[in-house]
This record gives sequence, C-alpha cells and structure tokens, in this order.
Amino acid sequence: MALIVHKYGGTSMGSTERIRNVAKRVAKWARAGHQMVVVPSAMSGETNRLLGLASELAPGSAKTAYYRELDMLASTGEQASSALLAIALQAEGVEAISFSGWQVPVRTDSSFTKARIESIDDKRVRAELDAGRVVIITGFQGIDPNGHVTTLGRGGSDTSAVAVAAALKAAECLIYTDVDGVYTTDPRVVQAAKRLNTVSFEEMLEMASLGSKVLQIRSVEFAGKYKVPMRVLSSFTPWDIDLEEESTSGTLITFEEDEKMEKAVVSGIAFNRGEAKISVLGVPDTPGIAYGILGPVADANIEVDVIIQNISKEGKTDFSFTVSQGDYQRAMELLRDKVVPALGASEVVGNPNIAKVSIVGIGMRSHVGVASTMFRALSQEGVNIQMISTSEIKTSVVIDEKYLELAVRALHTAFGLDKPE
Amino acid sequence: MALIVHKYGGTSMGSTERIRNVAKRVAKWARAGHQMVVVPSAMSGETNRLLGLASELAPGSAKTAYYRELDMLASTGEQASSALLAIALQAEGVEAISFSGWQVPVRTDSSFTKARIESIDDKRVRAELDAGRVVIITGFQGIDPNGHVTTLGRGGSDTSAVAVAAALKAAECLIYTDVDGVYTTDPRVVQAAKRLNTVSFEEMLEMASLGSKVLQIRSVEFAGKYKVPMRVLSSFTPWDIDLEEESTSGTLITFEEDEKMEKAVVSGIAFNRGEAKISVLGVPDTPGIAYGILGPVADANIEVDVIIQNISKEGKTDFSFTVSQGDYQRAMELLRDKVVPALGASEVVGNPNIAKVSIVGIGMRSHVGVASTMFRALSQEGVNIQMISTSEIKTSVVIDEKYLELAVRALHTAFGLDKPE
Repeated sequence: MALIVHKYGGTSMGSTERIRNVAKRVAKWARAGHQMVVVPSAMSGETNRLLGLASELAPGSAKTAYYRELDMLASTGEQASSALLAIALQAEGVEAISFSGWQVPVRTDSSFTKARIESIDDKRVRAELDAGRVVIITGFQGIDPNGHVTTLGRGGSDTSAVAVAAALKAAECLIYTDVDGVYTTDPRVVQAAKRLNTVSFEEMLEMASLGSKVLQIRSVEFAGKYKVPMRVLSSFTPWDIDLEEESTSGTLITFEEDEKMEKAVVSGIAFNRGEAKISVLGVPDTPGIAYGILGPVADANIEVDVIIQNISKEGKTDFSFTVSQGDYQRAMELLRDKVVPALGASEVVGNPNIAKVSIVGIGMRSHVGVASTMFRALSQEGVNIQMISTSEIKTSVVIDEKYLELAVRALHTAFGLDKPE
Repeated sequence: MALIVHKYGGTSMGSTERIRNVAKRVAKWARAGHQMVVVPSAMSGETNRLLGLASELAPGSAKTAYYRELDMLASTGEQASSALLAIALQAEGVEAISFSGWQVPVRTDSSFTKARIESIDDKRVRAELDAGRVVIITGFQGIDPNGHVTTLGRGGSDTSAVAVAAALKAAECLIYTDVDGVYTTDPRVVQAAKRLNTVSFEEMLEMASLGSKVLQIRSVEFAGKYKVPMRVLSSFTPWDIDLEEESTSGTLITFEEDEKMEKAVVSGIAFNRGEAKISVLGVPDTPGIAYGILGPVADANIEVDVIIQNISKEGKTDFSFTVSQGDYQRAMELLRDKVVPALGASEVVGNPNIAKVSIVGIGMRSHVGVASTMFRALSQEGVNIQMISTSEIKTSVVIDEKYLELAVRALHTAFGLDKPE
C-alpha cells in the first residue's frame, strides 16, 4: 500500500500493443493496492517526427525564437501517449486520468527546450489518487511563469518522473526501460559484464555523465537531492510476472553508503567513444590563460569535457582538453587562427581519435591504490595513457580510441567485476 | 489596418509545403498592416490517426469515460499544427506565437468531444497583437471550468475561428478551405452551379444544416449571433495573389437583408443523400404519440431529421420521419418490436433509399408561389414527392434517392440559378 511512480520510455510506449502491456502492468500494481502515478514518454519516433516537420519549415540551425514553438510542438507527443495510456487503463477496467504538465502544474523556468523543474503542485494529483484513480502525468514538460509550455530536453521524462516522485513523496520511482538495469560496463563490449543489484546515487551520477545511456543525468541529480529511491528495470518482462519479483528486479539506486562500502571498490567501467584531444603548447603562464583558451571555444558553442593544465616550465605551460569528434576541426581552426596568435602560444596539436575510460566506485574514497591498479592493468595491455583526470569516486584516462575495448575488458577483469556476484 | 481572423482547414495544413504557403499568405496580410489571428485545423489525417490509436486500445463503442481522454488526445493535432505554423511564419521573418485553447483561454462547458464555447478571454491575444505578433490559436478546443481540455467536435475549428473573431471584434473572419466559396448547389451534380458572391447568414444556416459541407453549422450560428462577417474562400489560390483581389473572393456571409432582397428568391439547392424514411401507420391519435415514437428512437442514439405527422382520420394518424441509412435497420426493428405493440399502432413501413432536396432563399419570405414552382418543376420531371416540410426560408421534399440528381438539376434551372450572375 504505497505511492509508486512508474516511468515508461518511448520504446515501451511504441505501439498500441505495447501501451496495452503497460496498462496491464500498471493495473496489476494498482490492484495490489498501490496508489499509482505513471509518467510516459512519447511513442518512440514521435518526437523526431514532429521536430523533423519543424526543421523542414525552418531549415538550418534553429533560432532561439523558435524554441518556444518547438516546445509547444514536441510536448504534444507525451500528451497523446498519456491520453492513450489512460484509455488503455480504462479499457482494463481501471479508472485513470491523464494530466499535461500545465495541468498538474509542473512549474519550470523559461529555458525553452531545456527547462528546469522548479516545483510541482501535488494537490490535483493527490485528489485524483485519493479518488482511486491512476494518474498519468506527461513526461518531459511543464509550464513557465508566463504560462508557456516548456520541455526539459531529451530524456527529460526520467527527470519528470523523479520530480513527481519527490513532490508526492513516493515510496519508489521505477524507471521501466529497454535494458534490465545498470551494468558493470556495456555488455556489448564485455560479455562478462553483469547487472548491479544496487548502485549508489553518486556512482550513477558519474556513470550517467560518462556516457551511460540508461538514465538522464539530471534525473539522477534530482533523485540525489530529494532522496528519491529509484529503480531501473525492464519493461519487456511479461506484464503478469509476480509483483514481488518485479519490484526487486533491475538496479536500485541507493543513498545508503554503509552497505555499499563492503562491496566492490569499483562498481563499473564507463567509457565515451568519439572524443578528440587538443593541446595548446607553450602558453605563457599568466593569469587568465584558461579563459583565454576556453572562452572563445565556449563562445563557438563547442562543449569541452576533460580539461588538464600541467605545471609550467620556464614560464610556459601546456593546456589540453577534449571535445567531441564532430567539433574537432572547428576547434582546431579557431585555436590556430585566433587563440594561439592572441595568447602568444607556440602551437596547437591534436588527436581526433581518442576515447575516455573511467572507473567509478564510491569505495574509491576509502581505498588506496585504486588508480595504480588501473594504470598497471592498462600498462600490461600496452595501452598508452594520454591524459588522466580524477575525482573523488572516479578516475578517467584518455587513450587512443583503437584500444578502447581492450582497455575496458582489462579494467573489468582487474577490478574483479567479471566474477559472478 | 484591421483585425482579421484567418481559418485554415486540415487540407490547407496537410504538409509542410502547404503550411509554408499558409505562412506566406498570412505574412502578406500582416505586411499589409493588418493585425492577424490565425486558427488552423490539425494536419489532414492526424485527428483520424490519433482516434484510430484510441479505438485500437478501446475497441467497440467508446464509453463516456473515455471522452475526456479522447479530447486530451485529439487536441494535440491542432497544437502541433499551430506550433508548426508559428515556426513557418518566423522562418518568413514574421513574429508569431501559438496558443492552445487553454492558454487563451477559450472557455467551454464540460461536454467532452462536443463542447460549446462559453467565453474567450481576449487579453493575452490582444497583448501579443499589440506587440506586433501574428497570433495563432488552436482550433477545435478549449478548457472547461475544471481545467480539463475539451474539443468542439468535428469541424469545430470553424466555430473556434468565428468565436475568436467575435471576441476580438474582428473586421472579418476568413475561412480558407478546399472549395472557393458557397455554390447555388453542388457543382458535381449541376455543372451550371455558380458561386454566390454573398449569401445571407440564415440561408447559410439552412444550407449547412442540409448537408452542405462547406461550414460547420455551429460556426454559422455563432457568426449570426455575434454578427461576425464571415467569408469562405479557397486556400489553393497562389499565396501571392493581390490582397485586394483575395479579400473580395469567395462568398461573403452577410447580415444585411436589404441588398439581398433584390436578388434571386431562391439562393441555392441543398440536398442530403443517404437518408431513409420510416412511417408508423394507424397510430391512435392521443396526446404524447410523438414522444411515444421518437423517445425510444432518441434513446437508441438514432438521429431523426424530417418529422411529419398528418391530420388524423377516425382517431388514427400516420407518423413519418427520416433517419440516416446507417440507422435504418435498427430503427425499424426497434419500432416493430417495441413501439408499435406499446402504442397499439397498426404497422411500420419504410424506404431505405430516399433523399432530401431543399430550396433555400431568404427571398421566399416575401415571395408567394415559390413552393408551387418547386412542385411543378419536380412534377414535370416525373419525380414523386414523398414528404414535404417547410420553414420560413426553406422548402424540403423527400424523394426516391434515384431521382436526386434529376431533381436538383430541374430545381436549379426552375429558379433561374443556371443563368450567369
């Protein structure tokens, strides 16, 4: 008898047959006595279809002026899927009602296409729950202080679900998706990768930011901030599996460190392909050089990932950072033509084919020698490390892209993740 | 320099290319200095696609419980097309903003799937117009007193446009559609049919109710009630035709009788195919027999059109009415099995293949002999009249369906509508 939030992704809502399965699954939970709130994404392909129409009408890069209208447009996808799910639930004999973001309301700031949730009013939703209805709330969207529709950006439905769960003080937020949980690394790269029964919210945060596509990073931040218990599980199990079994499947994202500390030091190996490395050499080591280099890069809308500045020798320093491969040429030209002459640096060198591999684990806080285990494992495989960057629960290395799979497998083994749990 | 409302139907909004043409046309009006409000329908096919998904999820006849969700679902079609039109206008360099029904707001009652507009707040729209923007308002939808989305029923965008025009006291409401105006009769039946430059609102009301598909009848009622000048014109003229020429094209629906009185007595020939006639014979002529017959029919959700009760002879009367052919069998069985025994009538007879032909003209009020001209023309062609029904500006006859074209052509000629205007 708890208040539970379910979130279903676009693939899980991808056809009327799948929507019917979602309805049957939710009905099972409701009949078990739970108060149910469901946050669906748009049917898979729908958001792309709508935005495709928009880009036919306004070719080239979208202007900011369009953003308000893009949100009006894209938000219809979730409104339609939510109404369809309500109908499917009613057809199952379960009372249900759907609400758009503005109806709840889910209040956001005014950053169209990437708005942030500011507050969620629980009054209307709670009244419907108390009347015995399943409440369906559109993911991905809200309303700004001026009454305009906003969207939260790609993957925003995860964040919607967690925010709704936080506002309603839900017992748990279940994220149903097309994978059955969070893995020690990508199973397509390492066959021995295994599903984690639990992962700490901080580890999840690092994994999400390191290219794991399981959850939108903002949803994890939100869950951490409001301590929302969150579970990632598969929407492709049969809808009628035992509720007890279903509610303990997947990966639980926890906030309790203690039990975790006893477990593996490193929980997972995350990685990012498709990065490029750029180094500006011989930069006069004066205050403001980081801004002098990265300011123009940011102004050109190029996103920078790892940033490293080494100690200076003879008043000169080398400054390195990584960008996505798509931005590499543009960044190199910008630096060569404008930044190097302006700063009096000696030259720019780069490598457009690098990858980033990271070990993530909350246990790293209290264990020494974790980084050296990482470096030894890579050295034994002959993988040269080009850059190193560390944080409290993560160590990342930048390596040649061609060694990526080799490195991930070596680290997966070195940290004992291959062994059956 | 006037406030003008444009309404574009689903066909006119049917592709990005067509939406771009609508944008260019609206931009032309805006650049000529007019304050522009545009009410678009959903892209053609979209409403059917959405409702098709719903009926896959809830097969069989839709229950009332679904209606709220059907409105949530269907209303997304206009929200998407409105946002797309705003984007297309911005791409043309014209500032534009789209509003959903709830954002204006367009307030309606709570009759989901067939709501009626109760009021429209003009504040937000006027502020945007005064800021120099084209305002796009979703057709077909509004918000009820409890904050639920409602829709106005099929063709409701016409009514939305007229209601918006009334609320804003617009100079004119232009209904762009896939025909270029209102004709003396259907040009597919009578080649000589010609477009009317003007038609009175009352004539339009009769024609709309008599099966003319040009305008939703409620929009005409609305226009009459609020004296909104309304023009039906083609959206398939080139967008860059002269604005003066465009603004006098099509058919103007007027409220001034005087100029009209000088013109033809009969303005047009309307007709309805696909009707069926049912007569209950030998009904004891006691108070309440109309209700005794039509009550059960209405309860079975069968819509009745023409109703005729003749004088009684020897305490018995015959009662006839028409229904659509699709309802004929069900109505016949209902009457035979339940109504006839209950009322003590003698029998039920019917004809499932009849049509209704009507002459419509505001001039009929002050001219005698119009009906007899009609009957003579039909008699000369050997068309037998099965039922007659008259109103102030309309005379309808029910005839065998196979004579429909013949009758329409004969009447078109008899009332001088073939002659060039």
